[in-house]
Amino acid sequence: MLGTMLYGPRDVRCEEVPEPKILKDTDAIIRLSATCICGSDLWPFRGANAVTAPMAMGHEYCGIVEAVGSAVKTVRPGQFVVGSFCISDNTCPHCRFGFQSSCEQREFMSGAQAPLARVPLADGTLVATPEIPPDDLIPSLLATSDVLGTGWYAADAARVQEGSTVAVVGDGAVGLMGVLAAKQMGAARIIAMSRHKTRQDLALEYGATDIVSERGEAGVARIKELTGGVGADSVLECVGSQESMTQALQSARPGAMIGYVGVPHGVTFDGQQLFFSQRGLMGGPAPVRRFLPHLMELVIERRINPGKVFDLALPLADVAEGYKAMDERRAIKVLLRV
Amino acid sequence: MLGTMLYGPRDVRCEEVPEPKILKDTDAIIRLSATCICGSDLWPFRGANAVTAPMAMGHEYCGIVEAVGSAVKTVRPGQFVVGSFCISDNTCPHCRFGFQSSCEQREFMSGAQAPLARVPLADGTLVATPEIPPDDLIPSLLATSDVLGTGWYAADAARVQEGSTVAVVGDGAVGLMGVLAAKQMGAARIIAMSRHKTRQDLALEYGATDIVSERGEAGVARIKELTGGVGADSVLECVGSQESMTQALQSARPGAMIGYVGVPHGVTFDGQQLFFSQRGLMGGPAPVRRFLPHLMELVIERRINPGKVFDLALPLADVAEGYKAMDERRAIKVLLRV
Repeated sequence: MLGTMLYGPRDVRCEEVPEPKILKDTDAIIRLSATCICGSDLWPFRGANAVTAPMAMGHEYCGIVEAVGSAVKTVRPGQFVVGSFCISDNTCPHCRFGFQSSCEQREFMSGAQAPLARVPLADGTLVATPEIPPDDLIPSLLATSDVLGTGWYAADAARVQEGSTVAVVGDGAVGLMGVLAAKQMGAARIIAMSRHKTRQDLALEYGATDIVSERGEAGVARIKELTGGVGADSVLECVGSQESMTQALQSARPGAMIGYVGVPHGVTFDGQQLFFSQRGLMGGPAPVRRFLPHLMELVIERRINPGKVFDLALPLADVAEGYKAMDERRAIKVLLRV
Repeated sequence: MLGTMLYGPRDVRCEEVPEPKILKDTDAIIRLSATCICGSDLWPFRGANAVTAPMAMGHEYCGIVEAVGSAVKTVRPGQFVVGSFCISDNTCPHCRFGFQSSCEQREFMSGAQAPLARVPLADGTLVATPEIPPDDLIPSLLATSDVLGTGWYAADAARVQEGSTVAVVGDGAVGLMGVLAAKQMGAARIIAMSRHKTRQDLALEYGATDIVSERGEAGVARIKELTGGVGADSVLECVGSQESMTQALQSARPGAMIGYVGVPHGVTFDGQQLFFSQRGLMGGPAPVRRFLPHLMELVIERRINPGKVFDLALPLADVAEGYKAMDERRAIKVLLRV
């Protein structure tokens, strides 16, 4: 079959790879309905993370179960499933605490930019729909696998509540999903920081009430202005750079939580500064599995449309163009037809 | 009157100082029933914070209102009051958000190691008791002003809940108050880290279920052992050093919050490490005013006895010996009779 391999910075290839097989009796093999490229795939693509050996890319997935190992009990061939990008048993103490992304058996999904994928710990990781969903819901169901679940976690970690004022730093797909999540959680005011017209428009569609196009000190000043000098109750940091984290911290009011889901690259915090600014931090890889049943239900009931975040769809064979389009910010997020 | 001045490292003096006066119409003058030495007073005493000019020491206080400015409405001469070490108006947006320690008009109290003290923003800062309390409650009411309120905030920031497993790093007075707070909040298990018999005993009396005397990696291993390999649901960091912060982070389970109230000295966090460890942080100067009415009520109803944390009482004239006793850890916390 065709699969996506990253050989080094900016060297991503669609090439013949072996079909995945059941390796453990807790595995499932999924025939993907669609897959996609993640903002986090751009870190190694851009050379920010070293690539020492060719990497099988892709960790967002949904599709039909093709086969299961002998120990798998909760899903069966023929069912439509979505799974988190974090593999988890969903039974260990960390999973039961709601942090499946720190599961004792955690693995990160890989090789999903392909027509078939192996999902370890299928019982803990996959959630089946009651029926096979209609085709037009596939993009939105695919989004629940990571990008929506991650934006949702940012809002959860930032403790967005009914009536909250929320600032979202980052207008990538995750930031836009953060806007959607904050809206669903009842935020009264959602300030999206974005300089790009198409992203601003989508943010507004997802529930943003204000757009701030300034960055740095000017961006902070604008948020202060919009919040009567106070700052936001909750801030979603969806980038992972020192600049965006500083922006997030300074946009928050004292006592606010920053939910940060952009993988930090070169970010440090000074303890005393953080202490006296009295901002809280919670982040990490999103425990998508915690939210997955609820998010899938919202999609199936057509109450949310996260799939709109895919503004470019390409055949798998053109995956390299997909990475390029996202790298150059010509596309927010690329769906791959498999 | 006599007052306490810090001239430089280890040079604290009780000497004649002018009596405080009403300077603004929102001030009150309090005749202190008792005052005390705070762990944070030891930072400048030890030279960890520079002392560029003589400092009027003391920020924990309770006593009888002696005089009020013309704008003061909620307290009147003759009433017994407790106030937070953070001066706040209790009406600004940060105060209303429950973070009075980041009040727009915040000042830090000073000069309270003396028989009389000036309290700015008396309406926002002071809480009066319904009646003049009996003398034996004075130490506990004094404790609510900072040390108990700070330990309480650590537990609140760490989100201690009914049934939680809590680890407390630091066996100073604040750590011991953290134990008391966790117990009041319904924690099922409270692990106090302490190597000192008298502090261990007090921790047990305040509700600790386990004592860990090991530190560093051995301490973390012991906490993991006590929690079935999982780590604590909530951790209270009550010291402020890099070592204690590392201890706190490693003692926590993924998804746990660290409530940190020790003023960080030389503490830094690596963003990516914090991200993947999935620990949350919330700290800062405690918004004692938020908790004060409740804590004072608990004391007056004799449901808690935080005053036991004072294991040495000295006349104000001997304040220098009090600093020395706390610095050498001969005393947990020193009460000063004024």
